Amino acid sequence: MARAQFSKYTLVAVALLVIYSLSYFFTPDVVYVDSVTKEVLGKGAANGPTPQQPLIDTNSNQEAQQEAKQDEQKTEEIEEEKPKDPIPFNDKVKATFVTLARNKELFDLIPAIRAVEDRFNRKFHYDWVFLNDEEFTQEFKDLTTAIISGKTKYGKIPKEHWSYPDWIDLDKAAESRKKMKEEKIIYGDSESYRHMCRFESGFFWQNELLDEYDWYWRVEPGIKIHCDLNYDLFRYMQDNNKVYGFTISIHEFRKTIPSLWGHTKDFIKLHPEHVAEDNFMDFISDDNGETYNLCHFWSNFEVASLNFWRSQAYRDYFEYLDKTGGFFYERWGDAPVHSIAASLFLPKDKIHYFHDVGYNHGVYTQCPLNKEFRYEHKCDCNPDKDFTFRGYSCGKKFYDRMGMIRPVEWEKYQ
Amino acid sequence: MARAQFSKYTLVAVALLVIYSLSYFFTPDVVYVDSVTKEVLGKGAANGPTPQQPLIDTNSNQEAQQEAKQDEQKTEEIEEEKPKDPIPFNDKVKATFVTLARNKELFDLIPAIRAVEDRFNRKFHYDWVFLNDEEFTQEFKDLTTAIISGKTKYGKIPKEHWSYPDWIDLDKAAESRKKMKEEKIIYGDSESYRHMCRFESGFFWQNELLDEYDWYWRVEPGIKIHCDLNYDLFRYMQDNNKVYGFTISIHEFRKTIPSLWGHTKDFIKLHPEHVAEDNFMDFISDDNGETYNLCHFWSNFEVASLNFWRSQAYRDYFEYLDKTGGFFYERWGDAPVHSIAASLFLPKDKIHYFHDVGYNHGVYTQCPLNKEFRYEHKCDCNPDKDFTFRGYSCGKKFYDRMGMIRPVEWEKYQ
Repeated sequence: MARAQFSKYTLVAVALLVIYSLSYFFTPDVVYVDSVTKEVLGKGAANGPTPQQPLIDTNSNQEAQQEAKQDEQKTEEIEEEKPKDPIPFNDKVKATFVTLARNKELFDLIPAIRAVEDRFNRKFHYDWVFLNDEEFTQEFKDLTTAIISGKTKYGKIPKEHWSYPDWIDLDKAAESRKKMKEEKIIYGDSESYRHMCRFESGFFWQNELLDEYDWYWRVEPGIKIHCDLNYDLFRYMQDNNKVYGFTISIHEFRKTIPSLWGHTKDFIKLHPEHVAEDNFMDFISDDNGETYNLCHFWSNFEVASLNFWRSQAYRDYFEYLDKTGGFFYERWGDAPVHSIAASLFLPKDKIHYFHDVGYNHGVYTQCPLNKEFRYEHKCDCNPDKDFTFRGYSCGKKFYDRMGMIRPVEWEKYQ
Repeated sequence: MARAQFSKYTLVAVALLVIYSLSYFFTPDVVYVDSVTKEVLGKGAANGPTPQQPLIDTNSNQEAQQEAKQDEQKTEEIEEEKPKDPIPFNDKVKATFVTLARNKELFDLIPAIRAVEDRFNRKFHYDWVFLNDEEFTQEFKDLTTAIISGKTKYGKIPKEHWSYPDWIDLDKAAESRKKMKEEKIIYGDSESYRHMCRFESGFFWQNELLDEYDWYWRVEPGIKIHCDLNYDLFRYMQDNNKVYGFTISIHEFRKTIPSLWGHTKDFIKLHPEHVAEDNFMDFISDDNGETYNLCHFWSNFEVASLNFWRSQAYRDYFEYLDKTGGFFYERWGDAPVHSIAASLFLPKDKIHYFHDVGYNHGVYTQCPLNKEFRYEHKCDCNPDKDFTFRGYSCGKKFYDRMGMIRPVEWEKYQ
């Protein structure tokens, strides 16, 4: 009987050891959603992961090993396997990357995708949708699929999303391009740039490949991501009731949008019901809506809700603008169109500045100014290049109008 | 008694379950050295890991979670912890990265380090030694330490490694720089470039910070690594009895080294004992040693043995060259000096071409030509830019003289 007692206790002890061992191996590699965080955010658990559901299981990565042949000699390779579904289905945010690109841009795009994968997506494995007004080449599809850790999808843009609508006077449009070329306006004489801006304003979110998603992150060829992003930006947007996220704000060239604000004011009179209470008018206008101050969010980076563009307010606005022909008779960018819509049709607290991304496109860079933050997130950018508080940026206005406190370092970087 | 028996068997079953559970959690994240691989390589297990010793434990990574405050709202962050010693001590190759850099080069260097970390070192965590002829700033040290996953060390180069030796006629050196400037020879009038080339030829491997290492990987500001490196390049060198590894070979500017080959021939006559049997003379000379064909390994990338430079042969060679004053009276690069030494003092099978790195420095790129290889290793380079088989490269000669078969794609990329 004494022996049986001993065995029983041992059994309990070993069972506890099993549980403890398992918990040890699970804990460090799994990120749980903090229930306190959820309370602070005032969110229920209905759509988010519960505290005991793993948000990311980093164990799924690097699961295999293989031998690799090199110059007829052998060495061992660590293979990073593409995980099938690393985030349990119920915890996934319905989100995707989206890239509009031409085949010839492939090798400008690939390092940009690699940066996004390195800094963010290799930890999250979100899907990636590619759109093009022509068929993608097999090489484009094979290479992008090879380097992206989520599913990839490729769509050819329907003709009606990338062509002149029937109400456009083609001669008037050609005349405008000629005039803009003479005035040396950037892309002033480009037809394809205009189709692109109109597409990004009114049609990308209508593409059927995006139907299954609620959120998108726009990535363009040539961009850089400078900092480790160790949290899910899509989930951040969803959990915090955000709608539109950006990294860089800037002034538009006035000559590209001479009549945009006039038409916008007309639209507001026609549809006052679409204008949100507590909107962000004072970010885009310094005289209570009389004139546009040219401030906009640079749309080559966007982490935003597809449902905003799908809303009646935005559909009505885009249709109204499109009917004026301004995308072709002038050279309206999708950035001011998106930005004006977000600033007028949303309460301003739904607009989020991603101060932490570290982003570069062309000559403009966002680089977090706080040294400790940059070190902690392994940012590889130079804060001297940060654009946020420079004269041509709208960063100072954004902080002020949003009631945010500028980082203590800002004065050194203006 | 029956109850005791039951408990005993249960105990055994549970114990097995514990062992099984533990093995399950260990296996997928650990790369074991394949004993077959070791046999093929003809290496014993004395210095390498045994089949049951983990070479890399990827569990060590991403061990923590934390809350992060963002714009006064909370989200969850995955923290990537710097592992203390991810490879068990006995399995570590004694290797380090080494970078010669100035403080002002910090932000050209950081993306290069990030690329090395992303593609290789975040899986291996090797140390990194930084050398400078001035003191490194705190910012330089803090930022590089923040983004490197191994230990970092910083050294100020001793004066005697970065100055004119007493046998140099300073007027003659100045006259030479003036003449080279007139002839528009790149870096022709630079004193610091000459100190750098002499340092990289004769002194970096004498720096005390490198004393504890057998291998180094040289990284310069501005370089790129284009492909995933899923194996340990240092271990590859060690296990395969290699000594010198490179990515790009190229022709030197003749005007920078008018007397280098003459002095080399004199040295060989003086020290025939240093010339290896089965050396690689036919890579650097097309007429059996009469003249130098200018081919050299581009030394801004090197994965090589420190012990080679420490050898009597190389010490004698460097001292001989240094006494001629050619580093100052001409403008000898460390690349031809390293390459001639490797080609003459080593059996040619100790020289390794890393065809798989995907490397860029300035205008020259190495990009693997095989499509499947590039996809599998997530290379973000354009094979059209590959330099290996272009006219100014020495790639074709290397393949031919080494008796290697050129990749089937080479003709499309010459």
